[in-house]
Amino acid sequence: MIGRDDIEAAAKRIAHHIRTTPTLTLEPGAFGSAARVVLKLELLQHGGSFKPRGAFNRILSARVPEAGVIAASGGNHGIATAFAARTLGHAADIFVPEISAPIKVARLRALGARVSVVGRDYQAALEASAARAAQTGALVVHAYDQDEVLAGQGTVGREFEAQAPDLDTVLVACGGGGLIGGIAAWYGGRCRIVSVEPERSASLARALEAGRPVEVEPGGIAADSLGARKVGALMFEIARVHVARAVLVPDAAIRRAQLALWRDVRLAAEPGGAAALGALLCGAYSPQSGERVGVVVCGGNVDPASLNPAPEEGFKP
Amino acid sequence: MIGRDDIEAAAKRIAHHIRTTPTLTLEPGAFGSAARVVLKLELLQHGGSFKPRGAFNRILSARVPEAGVIAASGGNHGIATAFAARTLGHAADIFVPEISAPIKVARLRALGARVSVVGRDYQAALEASAARAAQTGALVVHAYDQDEVLAGQGTVGREFEAQAPDLDTVLVACGGGGLIGGIAAWYGGRCRIVSVEPERSASLARALEAGRPVEVEPGGIAADSLGARKVGALMFEIARVHVARAVLVPDAAIRRAQLALWRDVRLAAEPGGAAALGALLCGAYSPQSGERVGVVVCGGNVDPASLNPAPEEGFKP
Repeated sequence: MIGRDDIEAAAKRIAHHIRTTPTLTLEPGAFGSAARVVLKLELLQHGGSFKPRGAFNRILSARVPEAGVIAASGGNHGIATAFAARTLGHAADIFVPEISAPIKVARLRALGARVSVVGRDYQAALEASAARAAQTGALVVHAYDQDEVLAGQGTVGREFEAQAPDLDTVLVACGGGGLIGGIAAWYGGRCRIVSVEPERSASLARALEAGRPVEVEPGGIAADSLGARKVGALMFEIARVHVARAVLVPDAAIRRAQLALWRDVRLAAEPGGAAALGALLCGAYSPQSGERVGVVVCGGNVDPASLNPAPEEGFKP
Repeated sequence: MIGRDDIEAAAKRIAHHIRTTPTLTLEPGAFGSAARVVLKLELLQHGGSFKPRGAFNRILSARVPEAGVIAASGGNHGIATAFAARTLGHAADIFVPEISAPIKVARLRALGARVSVVGRDYQAALEASAARAAQTGALVVHAYDQDEVLAGQGTVGREFEAQAPDLDTVLVACGGGGLIGGIAAWYGGRCRIVSVEPERSASLARALEAGRPVEVEPGGIAADSLGARKVGALMFEIARVHVARAVLVPDAAIRRAQLALWRDVRLAAEPGGAAALGALLCGAYSPQSGERVGVVVCGGNVDPASLNPAPEEGFKP
């Protein structure tokens, strides 16, 4: 299981390639919550999500063969891997499923990656990428289930704690679990880490109930970033010790969080990036009055036009 | 002329009502610039622009009559005044011109202000608001030409210097000049303050040439935030001493900056909020290699759909 030393080492390794993303402390009563909310603006990271932290750490920890690197992804991890590969002078071979947001596929192509759009979800793209990797021998950069990737994502926690040292709770969205696994490993129990998943992609909640990673059938508006069929084996060992709770949010709460971040803070988050805040908005996580709650806004690869509420959503401007 | 003491006093007065907006230090080579760029993310302020700083300082410095407060604005100052009035329990009477962005008018109404859409530009709305103010006796909150407003906007400079103490240069967009006037008063020559205006709204550049505020005919894509016919008399006295240069940028550079902020940093700036960066992108301001350049991203009240480049713009995703 990775620990703080691995995350410290990762932070040093990736420092020149990663933005220290800022935090924003909101006013009391923001979003109608009783909590004191601090947002970690990780959507301002290179490539629009936290994913380059893990990708850089994995690639910089290995010897990269002539064939370059290969990854499967809902989109964000692919962008991160392609970005890291371009920065470091390697070829990138990226597999994404058909549900990947068009903005993500366009960005991948712009980054010069070889892009294959395969299968209906992340798992299908992963299988196709594994077959290709067996042929080419490229370095596999897993979206979440590798120690180097977890340690890289853990640098979000390291940075957040330095910026906001007195948080009681951190809310983190969970798909395959790389981000929350890394953050939970960093805090190691010194702060309440709460996993937030879409009701329709409850891979960690179901795994914690079952005592082991189990398969779910992912769906919903955040599926292209949180839609893993199963949490990673490595993150699960961390989560069973260091994740305090795994709460679920309906798609409507994710959408409301996305619209509220735009209206009240002018932040353009994708559904998966807004999911953690959704738990505060719908009460899936109910803070004490004055509780200091960190919320990781972890991705912004969204069609900006989608931030305009449709009339039938009844969202006050 | 206001000075640092006024800005310190303003900072204390408005502290509970204003967000300390974060900064983001970009990587070398960001936006293809030779400078080391630090962005001040003032678009994350309440109401989506820096304007509440001045509005709160003005209102909290005065006795507000029963009739409440009144303001004319291209939109952002109106939103700020309406927001401050609602927060402090006063009525707000806001005049905006017909060119005000629909998103700004919608927000004004949502804030509970009495809204009058009058005339073709800010000046026309200002004249209409002056006539109304004479009838009602409401407290006038000027968009830029009042000491309390300048001192409030100057708190952006105070905050920026604390966050990034070693800047060589700060680029600030200029319309009526409240923001740059306040920031220049704060730095008082300790940092090179560069004004950035749209070529089609060059009110400060023309004033500095003429030795006094002169009328221009404002237009262009940033007119609803930078389209004042004349800079303020109060800011002009500051600018002639403490603004190092006034550069002009074409609309195309403003648009490119807006698209680049979205693509590379996932920030949704309105044209006026992206204008300062436009000066770096088009070379209107040409930094030394390694020069530490602060860029104030001062507004984000934009239709997010407009951040998708049209095919004919030929902007790489």
